[in-house]
Parts: sequence; structure tokens; C-alpha cells
Amino acid sequence: MSLLVTGSIAIDSVETPHGRMDDVLGGSAVYFSLAASLFSPVRMVGVVGEDFDLGRFKPLADKRIDTHGVEVRRGSKTFRWHGKYAGAMNNAETLGVELNVLAEQGPPIPPAFADSRFVFLANTHPALQREFARQFGRADLLVCDTMNLWIENEQAELRKTLGVVHGLVLNEGEARLQTQEMNLVKAGREILKLGPRFVVIKKGEHGSLLISHDDLFIMPPYPTEKVVDPTGCGDSFAGGMMGYLAAQGRVDRDTLRAAMARGSVVASFVIESFSVEALSRVTAADVERRLGELREMSRVV
Amino acid sequence: MSLLVTGSIAIDSVETPHGRMDDVLGGSAVYFSLAASLFSPVRMVGVVGEDFDLGRFKPLADKRIDTHGVEVRRGSKTFRWHGKYAGAMNNAETLGVELNVLAEQGPPIPPAFADSRFVFLANTHPALQREFARQFGRADLLVCDTMNLWIENEQAELRKTLGVVHGLVLNEGEARLQTQEMNLVKAGREILKLGPRFVVIKKGEHGSLLISHDDLFIMPPYPTEKVVDPTGCGDSFAGGMMGYLAAQGRVDRDTLRAAMARGSVVASFVIESFSVEALSRVTAADVERRLGELREMSRVV
Repeated sequence: MSLLVTGSIAIDSVETPHGRMDDVLGGSAVYFSLAASLFSPVRMVGVVGEDFDLGRFKPLADKRIDTHGVEVRRGSKTFRWHGKYAGAMNNAETLGVELNVLAEQGPPIPPAFADSRFVFLANTHPALQREFARQFGRADLLVCDTMNLWIENEQAELRKTLGVVHGLVLNEGEARLQTQEMNLVKAGREILKLGPRFVVIKKGEHGSLLISHDDLFIMPPYPTEKVVDPTGCGDSFAGGMMGYLAAQGRVDRDTLRAAMARGSVVASFVIESFSVEALSRVTAADVERRLGELREMSRVV
Repeated sequence: MSLLVTGSIAIDSVETPHGRMDDVLGGSAVYFSLAASLFSPVRMVGVVGEDFDLGRFKPLADKRIDTHGVEVRRGSKTFRWHGKYAGAMNNAETLGVELNVLAEQGPPIPPAFADSRFVFLANTHPALQREFARQFGRADLLVCDTMNLWIENEQAELRKTLGVVHGLVLNEGEARLQTQEMNLVKAGREILKLGPRFVVIKKGEHGSLLISHDDLFIMPPYPTEKVVDPTGCGDSFAGGMMGYLAAQGRVDRDTLRAAMARGSVVASFVIESFSVEALSRVTAADVERRLGELREMSRVV
């Protein structure tokens, strides 16, 4: 099934205990697309400024990523993010952000992409997510991400958006903030009441949870020992998950579990390098091998 | 195989978002013994003051718990702890502590208990743990717990103790503090270098990890929705684990995994009530049923 993502394309500067990388490729649509392309062709929608050197997309070349939905906007500048991870590296501290083109109107969806059946709306203003969602009338599966900023400041808009999507992917802190419920299973069930058929709660090094009307799935984490840079892990998780679902063409209980497992394992590669370095090299066979290891490591006897 | 625990017997006052209980039975040896007795007879060693009403042990009656190793010390007062849990209830805030009899010498091991083959040394000063350990020359398995206080202030003593035990059970914060390593798998491997053959790292609501020379096991958490009072969860985890191991009489790779699974599930009951209320009612059949649910909920497809 056709898969599309709307999200950011960024120039990142990242500091971690392992070093610092300046002006590297980042952004939710980039990580998502690379991860999804392991399983399915993917259509990428985003916008950059005229300062963006398209040579930066080299890691996306030779992948099943259609970049025709990337708008290069004259007179605008590309989104830039500068962040730092410390300690257990579970959370990024934003040291600087230049929204630039992301503060302007969203990119147009190319007409040829309107028939997309699986759609992921990466984190952005919930009203913009809904505007994108409106353009995919034939979608079988609309899933979105969100963040603290919208939960705190745009709750009414976010609730409207949750009313039109089928799935929500967010992290544990966001789930607790949205519901004021500390228990994550209860938090997930509260979110289901707002509309989504399923909620995926990402817990970083602790794995993830899937809560739906017919399932509660505890996805164990792959125990990565080489933690270099967590940037993009969440978007890669979503990319691996959506790519697998699009490849299967269905969203039943076991396929959702299998998709989450792929997303989780793909993210375990992303964290092992700065930017998209590891992600652009990993293969579907690598993912299946690591998933086999994880099944054995989490086998409850 | 014979199982013995040395640990505290306490009178607790606990505050959680669900209410407050004053002067209830607690202590590591109590939680451990109740949990272990689901799988194996257990010998309990501890000390109380003359203020301790033995009627408080009513929840231990009719269980396979031998309390002959409980000393009632004349002229001394029982250990008291007053704690509070807030938010996600992952950590207790100690509001008050009266060490009382725990600040004095440890209780004697009854001669009839010296032949114990499986021994758990609950958290106390590492020198006292080692003094206990010395008295169990025939033990097949010596496992201990520890806490931040000893990691920070008695590192030399703790290292000596880790040199004589076979296993260590501690929580994620303690593992990071001990090793100055944020990555828990690496932290576990660092601890193995100090002597233990295996390390169990408890992550509260996120499950637990087993790290040994021949295994890395990711134990998923049972997703408890009813979280009333986490007091005693760690000791019950250890009790369930050690009770199962003693019942099997062996400590191979799969038996250790199976034991951790039982410990983890027993703890999921403890958290559902104040004090030992739920723990004293649970049966081995309840544990197996919940473990079956957990296997299904964490099945990676």
C-alpha cells in the first residue's frame, strides 16, 4: 500500500557525551522515510529553504523514497535545531531552534500523492496536521505524533486532530501530560476515548506499549549498549512501524504488534550513530536478525 | 532446597496518592518470606524490639514460613519507617526513620538454619551481610540486595561483600550509582566484574533485566493498572525469585529466567494494596495465571 509522511526536514547540531556534530541532516520526515523505506516505498512531504543543499539528501538516494513532495521555498530558510543529550540520554535539551520555513504555511501535497493509503503526520501544529489529514480522503490508516508544546498550548486543536486520526504515537511524558494520568496503561485508555483506535507509547530505553480496544502489547526494548545519539529514534520507530504496516497492507492485532517490533528495532540502530549514518546503512535483514535476538532475550519461560 | 532470608521486620507508615496507612507490618524479610512461601518453605531471620506485638505476624500464619529465626530483643524497639510515594510512584521519599534495633548487632542465625542452601541477604550494612554469608558455608546460592547509602558511604565494604555472593539484586538507580555507567547493560557487566555470577536490575514499572556471563534477559513488566502502594515490591520480587529457585533446586539459565518471571509477577500483586494485604492472599495459581497473561501481552511477532 502507498505510504506517505508529512514532517520536518532539518539541519541539526547535536551534542552528546560521545561528541558533537554540527549541521547534519535531520528532521522527522527524513528519519521516518529512511526507516520506512526498509519495508515499503515511501512518499516524503516537507519543505526546506533555498539555503538547503539538495546534496544533503545523498543518504536518501537509492532508497525507495520519493522526494517529489519536498518543496524548496524561495526566500525562506531551512529549519534548524540544536540539542544536547546528557546522562541516560532519555531526553534532549533544546539549546537553540530556528523554525524558519516551518513557521510559514505547510508544503502542498502533490496531486499524485493524494491517493496515499497509509499516512503519517509527524509532529507539527495539530491544525496543520488536520489540514493534511483532510487531503487524504482515501487513507486506510492515518497516524500522527505530537509534542508537549501542543498538549500544553493547543489542547482544543489537538483534541480535534485526535478525533480524525486512527492512531497516535507519543512518548511516556507526553502521554502523562495529555491525560494527567501517571499509569501509562490508564493514560493510553484515556487517549483512546479521544478518538484513536490505537496508541503507541514510547518509553525510550524501556521499550514501548501498544494500547488499543482489543490489545495491550508490551514491546521490550532491544538492549543497545552503543548509545551515541538518540535524535530521530522516535521518528524512525514510527517509520519502521508504518513501513511494515504499509507493506502488509493491513492493521490487524498481530500485524500491529509485528510492525511495532520492526519500528522498535530500527530505532535501536539509529541510536548507534550521529544523524542518519547508521540508519542509511541498515538493511531489512539486519532488522530481522536483531529482532530474532530480541525475541530470544525477552523469552519468558 | 532450604531457603533462608535475613532482613528487616518493620512497622511502616505509608502515604500514597491512594491514602495513608499507619503502623502496618513491613520490612524486607516479611515481604520476601511471604513471596517466597508461594513456591518454597522459607526460614526467616530478623530482629524486633520488645514493643513488637507478635500478633502482627498473623498474615504469615498458615504459610510455609519458619519464624524461629526472629529474635525479640529485650530493651530494644522495632525498626520504623515512614515513607511517601507521589507521581508515578517509582521512588519513595523517606519522611522518617527510626532504626532502633537495626542499629544494634544483627540477630543470631539459629544452628538449625546453618545448613540453608539458598540464602538471600536483604539490604543492610554490607559488613553485616558478609558476616551472615560467612555462616552459610553450604549455600549453593547466596544473593544480596543493597542501597544507595552503602554504595555512597561503604563502597569498600560493599565490594568485599560482592566478592562473596553469587548474585546481586538492585534497582536501576543503584546500578547506575555503583558503576557510574548510564547504560544498564553495561552497568550490569561492570558489576559482574566485582564477583557476582548474575545481576538483576529492577526498573519498577519498566520491568527488569538479568545480566550474567551466559545470558541477557529482558523481563517485561506486568502492566498493573491498580497501583496503590509500591512498598515491598523489590523484596517480594526477590522472594518470588529465590522461592522459585529453591523449589527447583537449580540455578541454570532458563530456571533463573523463570524465577525472575515469578518474582516480577508476585511484585505486581504487592503493589495493588497497602502493606502485605494483597501478598498474603495471592496464590501460586494466581501467579501462574498472571504470568500466562504477561507471556501473551509481551509476545513479539
